Formats: sequence, C-alpha cells, structure tokens
Amino acid sequence: LHSKLPDVGVSIFTQMTLLAQETGAINLAQGFPDYDPPQELLEALARHALTPGHHQYAPMPGLPRLREAIAAQVARLHTNAPAPDPATEITVTAGATEALYAVLAAVVRPGDEVVVFEPAYDLYGPAIRLQGGVPRYVRLPAPDFRPDWDAVRRVVSPRTRLVMVNTPHNPSGAVFTAEDWHELARLLAGTDALVLSDEVYEHLVFDDTPRMSARQHPELRERSFVLSSFGKTYHATGWKVGYCIAPPALTTEVRRVHQFLTFAVSTPTQHALADVLAADTSDAHARGLAGFYQQKRDAFRDLLAGAGWDLLPVPGGYFQLARYNALSPATDLAFAQYLARDKGVAVVPVSAFYHDGFDDGLIRFCFAKQEATLIEAASRLR
Amino acid sequence: LHSKLPDVGVSIFTQMTLLAQETGAINLAQGFPDYDPPQELLEALARHALTPGHHQYAPMPGLPRLREAIAAQVARLHTNAPAPDPATEITVTAGATEALYAVLAAVVRPGDEVVVFEPAYDLYGPAIRLQGGVPRYVRLPAPDFRPDWDAVRRVVSPRTRLVMVNTPHNPSGAVFTAEDWHELARLLAGTDALVLSDEVYEHLVFDDTPRMSARQHPELRERSFVLSSFGKTYHATGWKVGYCIAPPALTTEVRRVHQFLTFAVSTPTQHALADVLAADTSDAHARGLAGFYQQKRDAFRDLLAGAGWDLLPVPGGYFQLARYNALSPATDLAFAQYLARDKGVAVVPVSAFYHDGFDDGLIRFCFAKQEATLIEAASRLR
Ligand SMILES: CSCCC(=O)C(=O)O
Ligand SMILES: CSCCC(=O)C(=O)O
Repeated sequence: LHSKLPDVGVSIFTQMTLLAQETGAINLAQGFPDYDPPQELLEALARHALTPGHHQYAPMPGLPRLREAIAAQVARLHTNAPAPDPATEITVTAGATEALYAVLAAVVRPGDEVVVFEPAYDLYGPAIRLQGGVPRYVRLPAPDFRPDWDAVRRVVSPRTRLVMVNTPHNPSGAVFTAEDWHELARLLAGTDALVLSDEVYEHLVFDDTPRMSARQHPELRERSFVLSSFGKTYHATGWKVGYCIAPPALTTEVRRVHQFLTFAVSTPTQHALADVLAADTSDAHARGLAGFYQQKRDAFRDLLAGAGWDLLPVPGGYFQLARYNALSPATDLAFAQYLARDKGVAVVPVSAFYHDGFDDGLIRFCFAKQEATLIEAASRLR
Repeated sequence: LHSKLPDVGVSIFTQMTLLAQETGAINLAQGFPDYDPPQELLEALARHALTPGHHQYAPMPGLPRLREAIAAQVARLHTNAPAPDPATEITVTAGATEALYAVLAAVVRPGDEVVVFEPAYDLYGPAIRLQGGVPRYVRLPAPDFRPDWDAVRRVVSPRTRLVMVNTPHNPSGAVFTAEDWHELARLLAGTDALVLSDEVYEHLVFDDTPRMSARQHPELRERSFVLSSFGKTYHATGWKVGYCIAPPALTTEVRRVHQFLTFAVSTPTQHALADVLAADTSDAHARGLAGFYQQKRDAFRDLLAGAGWDLLPVPGGYFQLARYNALSPATDLAFAQYLARDKGVAVVPVSAFYHDGFDDGLIRFCFAKQEATLIEAASRLR
C-alpha cells in the first residue's frame, strides 16, 4: 500500500502521552487540562443524556439554539464587529480540528498555495497536502514569534489561496496585533486569497495584551474563516465541539464539506453547551479565563525561577516554551525523552511543529494543570 | 468564490426534514428512529458526564476499552472470521460518515477510479470527487437491487482503486450474498483495488436472510475497510460514533487521516458505549434488532396493504421503497413534495440517490418509527 501521507507518523502529542504513561512522567506534553469542565456543564450533559428526544441527528450546521447562543456571545465579546448570523454564518463542528480540515477541503485545490506560519500545529501541513495544496512556510522568529511581514510578502503570490493564522499561537502564545492584521489585510487587498484564523485560545490572553479577532478587521472579516472551540473555553477537550464563523458564501462552502465529513455533532452535547452558553454566567466565565490561566502561567514560572531554565515570554494560550542548554542531548526530541525518562516530566519538542524538523533548542510545557501538578512537575524539573 | 462542489446543495435528508417541519408532515424521510436509545445507555452517558477525568481527549484511535468491547463482540458475532485486533485494526470515528470520508481521503488519489453502486447514499460521489477521484457508477436494478456482475466487470479497470459496497443497502435494503462477495473477490483477485464495506445496518437483516460481512470473506478481508455505527445499532443517530475495522496496514492509513479530520471522539460518549457493549446483554440486543425492525417493516406494509401502493421487497435496513403511479407529478421529487404538503407524510425521492438524477418512480419511507407513528402515517397515505 502506497501511503498518501508516508511521512506522517503517530503525532508527537500521542507519542509523548504514551511515553508519559509508560514512564509515569507527569504529562505536560499534550495540551489538555487535568481538571474538569465546570460542574454546571457536566450536569447539563447528564440532564440531556436523560432527556427523551435528544438522541437523533442534530441539524447539519448545528443545533439552532447553540448557534444562537454562540452568535449572541460573540456579539457581546467582539465589540466593533457585526454579530454573526447564526443561520448563515456559524457551523458547529467535531472540534476545531474538523473545522480546520473542512475549510481546507472546501477551498484548497491541487496546486493552490497555503501560507503557514511555523512553528505550526502538526496537522496544518499534511491536511493541506491531502487537498493537493502546497504549504508555503514562513518562520516566526523566537523569542517573540511575531511575523516578519517582508518574509510573508515573499511567499504570497497569485497562487496563494489561503493564509493560516493562529492567535494566540500554539506553541508560543504569540498574539496577532492590530498592526499584524493590518499588514495581512494590505498584503491580501486586491487578491482573492482567504484567511483561516484559528482562535481556539481566544480567551487566554494575558497581561491585558490587546487581542483582536480576524472578525474585528473589516476587510479581513469578509474573507476569513474564524475557528474556536468549546474544548479550550470549557476545559472539555474530550467533548470535541468547535465551530467556524464565516460570511455566508464561505459558510456555504464549509457546510458542503462538513455535511460529508461528519454531517452533524453530538445532539446531547450540543444541548448541554447551549444551556451553559446561554446562561447569565457565560460571559464572566469567558472573561475569567485570562486571569485563571495567567495565574497558572505565573505560578509555573515562579516555581521554576532560579533553576536555570530560560523561559520565553508567554502572551497567551496553554504553553510555556523554554530554551534548554543543549549540552549532551543533541536534539530537542532527545532532550524531551530524557526529561520524561530521567526527570519524570513529559514535554513536547518544538521541532515537531516544523515541517523540516527545524530544531531551535526549545521544548513546550503545558501549564493547563492543577497547581499541585505544576508544583510537583517543577520540583522534578528544578 | 468558485466552489469545489458547485452541484452540492442542502442534502435531500435535510430538505425533507425541513419540509416536514414547515408542513407538519410526519417525517418518514431522514433515516432516524423516533424513539430513544436503551435506557441503560442513556444512564451510562449521564454517569460518565458526571465522572471526573472523563472529559479530555480520548486516545486518537478510540478508547481502548471501547475498541476491546467492539473486538470482543465482533468476534462473537462474526463467526468464521478472526477477531479484529483492537490495537491495530479498529478505529473509532465521528460516525460512520467520518470513517467513510477518512477511507476515501486516505486511499483515493487524483485520477483513481472508485466503483459506486447506485442508488447510493448522497455523500459517496462528492466525497470521492473531493479527493480528485472519479466515481464509476453501476446501477443496481429494481426491484431487487442486486449487482449485475457483468456490468461491474465493465467498469473495473487497472485504475480502480476502491469498490464501495453497502450491505444492507440504503435505500433498498438489498443484502450482499456469499455469491456476491465471491464475484467481487474474483473480480479483484490479482489487482490492488480495495473495498469499503459500509455495514451500518448490519444487524437489520430480515426473514433469516443469510448475511455476511466483507470480513467473513477471507480474500476480501485483507483488502477491506468495514464500517459500522452505534447510531444504527443503539438508536442513537445523534451521538455520532462509528468505527472502521481493517487490517493493520489499512488501519494505519485511516488513522493518519482520522488524526487530522477529528483527532478523537467524545470521551464520555465512548465510555458510555463501552459500558453497554461490554455488558452481558449486548449480543442479545444486537441479535434482537432483526426481529424488532422486521416487526416494524411488517406492520408498515400491513397498514398500507390494499391501498394501491406498490411496495418493493425489504430484505434489511430502515427503509421501505414504493413505486408510485406516476400520473400527474412528473418526478419523484414532485411526488414527494405533494405527499408532504397534501398528505402530511415526508419521504425521500430515490432520484436523490443517483448522480444523474435517474428517476425510476420510487420513493423511500423510513419505518424506524414507533408503531403509533406508522399507524398515523399509513392512515394519511391510504
Ligand atoms: C489533539 S492532541 C494536541 C492537543 C494540542 O492542541 C496540543 O497539544 O498542541
Ligand atoms: C445523515 S442524514 C441521512 C440519514 C440517512 O442515513 C438516510 O436518511 O439515508
């Protein structure tokens, strides 16, 4: 059998989670919280599990009441952008992962070029190649991981179909500024290139750093697919519910593919999310995430202070990057394996986020963990 | 925006469900039960919803305990086939729909040909075309919808990458016989063509008709992806959990794509299904489905007897086909719309299952409904 993705192995997240299980290491590798979703969300799922009539196909684009709750909250939180229309602009998907794949399958044709900022989440490249698309990589330079717009300009061409943005960025936490969006808008003006803006960590922006969605830029909004995920916002990565917001013509294309990829998303789960999102407390929950995660970031950094780790700045997201002192382990992967086996802490080597395995001597810690977990991990790392 | 799927509209199932909602018609169109999953399954989901630690990413190929329960049941029910290995041969997916798409994305390259028997579920053709593949359609002739193997032979060529089988068949209920599998195996011997066998209605085979999975044919098993779905087996179409069984080399390819399509499936939902599948009662439940649905089929046919409907034989599945007396409405779609609007019963026109809109004067009723629903629908149809 001649594979279409011969170079795709088990993902680094799975590999490191397995290594953590084998070695008993604390898993700071794969990005997921070690705490549960809010109790009212769990209770809502239990309630809808027991509700007759909530167990057959949801409508293909998502339950209307969930799409309406999403639209209402987005309208409240994205000031200075028009509210999305739940009927024609919102599609509920099996996690942001499905939304990402659906956008690529919907718009990328063989030979089309897609601009990808690296380091990048490991699915971007292969999912583009499965459509016959050609990834055009642009490196974000450490330690700030801000785009060099001259470098971007050099890869944008009439063949550019899509630019993929991820803000806050995994793994660095870098946040697109208004100036970045403006540069992107200028670059794409007069082309028909589209934008995929993966904003799953949208609420996790620290230190009052201003944040801006692609939806909040009037020219970009018209050409953008904006993705988010309840997995990140409600500490429920295992529920696999995300969504895509895009103008009606783009939403039509996403739905054409979503209809064939999964058709619809779990009905009782959508009801549970709709209950919680429509409750009075939902904006406070979303707004509280920045402080909640900033505290974890600060705790983790404080716990490691003075232990010789070179910790990079973390403007947002789930992750702390660290530059290690490459003495004996020759690669970041070898260092990550050493940390799991000898120190009992599993991490992700950042070279896994580069198509060419570029190794800048960085590893990634996930700090979306209970304080006790962070304390124990730090004591092992000191 | 130049669509990749310009001819794909809102699916006929969604259209007819919306028409039913607008008109107040009884929805015998989209294939879903109007009753709930077994109470123990609902309780299991409620229990796992409240279980701490069951809310983050499941392993990419599915929860080990769910894959083990699937393997054990398949081993008990598919006598004369080796048990599938849960570690290397089973992948849990977001419904059989995701499995179908993942198989196509994993193995079909631009220019590859895929044999599709028509009438066919509406996603087959567009999902093949999204991979750059070329569907080669073979019509199954009414009223039996059995393959004409000479016709199949005429479309199989060195470019054939995959043959898609659906048994029991949607919409006709036709069941592949041992002889059919044998013909297919003969046809593919010496080629490297693969088989996708969509067996989501596997337990719904009536009148003691012998049934056989692609897994039970020793030569086909080695080249087959076999799909099934808890949606059909547990009356939970809205839960969106299915799976793919295939030899290790084929499973590797499916997982490479599944990892990027959805990554994993709802953790609490997988736990709930694992509980119920591992219980003593699960084989009796699966074996009881044939009688349960045969009774519905018979009730519906009896209720329509003598009312002038030409009902086709139904060897399996959820659906009754009927040939209508095409007097005034010129098309099956017009007839289906008339039935919804004037008679208060929504159905699916079978022309929607042909890429070229072939209209054989057939409509499809879903009889996966409570007896009271079938009685009311029949009284409207008489
Ligand atoms: C789906 S596993 C990867 C989770 C994640 O977002 C990460 O660890 O970067
Ligand atoms: C996913 S909607 C279609 C359901 C179905 O299998 C059918 O009606 O044929």
